[in-house]
Amino acid sequence: MRTRLLAGLVLVLAASAQKPEFSGKGELQLPANYREWVYLSSGLGMTYGPAASENPDRAPRFDNVFVNPAAYRSFLETGKWPDKTMLVLEIRSSESKGSINNAGHYQNDLVAIECEVKDSARFPGNGWAFFGFGKSSSAKMIPRSEDCYACHSKNGAVDNTFVQFYPTLLPVAKAKGTLNPAYPH
Amino acid sequence: MRTRLLAGLVLVLAASAQKPEFSGKGELQLPANYREWVYLSSGLGMTYGPAASENPDRAPRFDNVFVNPAAYRSFLETGKWPDKTMLVLEIRSSESKGSINNAGHYQNDLVAIECEVKDSARFPGNGWAFFGFGKSSSAKMIPRSEDCYACHSKNGAVDNTFVQFYPTLLPVAKAKGTLNPAYPH
Repeated sequence: MRTRLLAGLVLVLAASAQKPEFSGKGELQLPANYREWVYLSSGLGMTYGPAASENPDRAPRFDNVFVNPAAYRSFLETGKWPDKTMLVLEIRSSESKGSINNAGHYQNDLVAIECEVKDSARFPGNGWAFFGFGKSSSAKMIPRSEDCYACHSKNGAVDNTFVQFYPTLLPVAKAKGTLNPAYPH
Repeated sequence: MRTRLLAGLVLVLAASAQKPEFSGKGELQLPANYREWVYLSSGLGMTYGPAASENPDRAPRFDNVFVNPAAYRSFLETGKWPDKTMLVLEIRSSESKGSINNAGHYQNDLVAIECEVKDSARFPGNGWAFFGFGKSSSAKMIPRSEDCYACHSKNGAVDNTFVQFYPTLLPVAKAKGTLNPAYPH
């Protein structure tokens, strides 16, 4: 019984570490176990405008989105993202022909990782900031002049995030009344 | 401190329930929180032969695969699936035009759920069995005469499972030497 309690305590401590961690230089650290976080959804070859259209000479890429478990559970209860929310966007190449697969697309190599973090004490304003890891394990903040800030603020269905593309969370936001007023109701 | 230990114990008990559960009639129960299990990968419109080719009149479908966390951690250590492994295949419709998305595909409504379970005491032979939930929360075992059994046995890269389509697990199987001898090395 004491062993079980100890194991439980370890789990609690591990869970408490599943939030944004920064180096002394302010660089965000990629959580080693983000693939064990809660999966939100995937897209293939998603493009957000003519200028950002897919490269026709390259197979389309998958994007997978993960979130820290504490933030996910808070969203299910409230329809809102709590402070210390961390969304991880993982971009992977796609393949069509391999093993028994003859058409369609499956996921292959890691291309890059990006993160969106909510930390009100660290990021005044709306609390959100973006980070581009590439294939590194730490990343500087992306400057506020970049398009991602304005686009998420304007078009995200809930609080700077694209909940409209997360099929298990959009109904929660609708039920809780937390959709961005500018998002079509 | 006592509260933390108690919370830890609850987590341990919750984790211990994350394995296949059957009704008295032998029907597999869909875990209510499978979306909090570990995500393995997604495909879009994957087809496994001419007879199973995609319907050209319908948008291609996504499939997402989740596994119970204990089985995932065991696979990372050994390259093998332990007894009580449960893989959940979630099939979702896709959309192309919506919000700011102009091309490619993102996920939408749930179409159906299928599971593959390893339970050696319950399923003699190789221990694996398949279940088709549709949109229900319990499912009878799919008869052994169905194609899924022979196809997984012959083509699965590791022990009746398509690890060749799970990009974070295939390198583990290669490193641990647990690939199916019939799978191209």
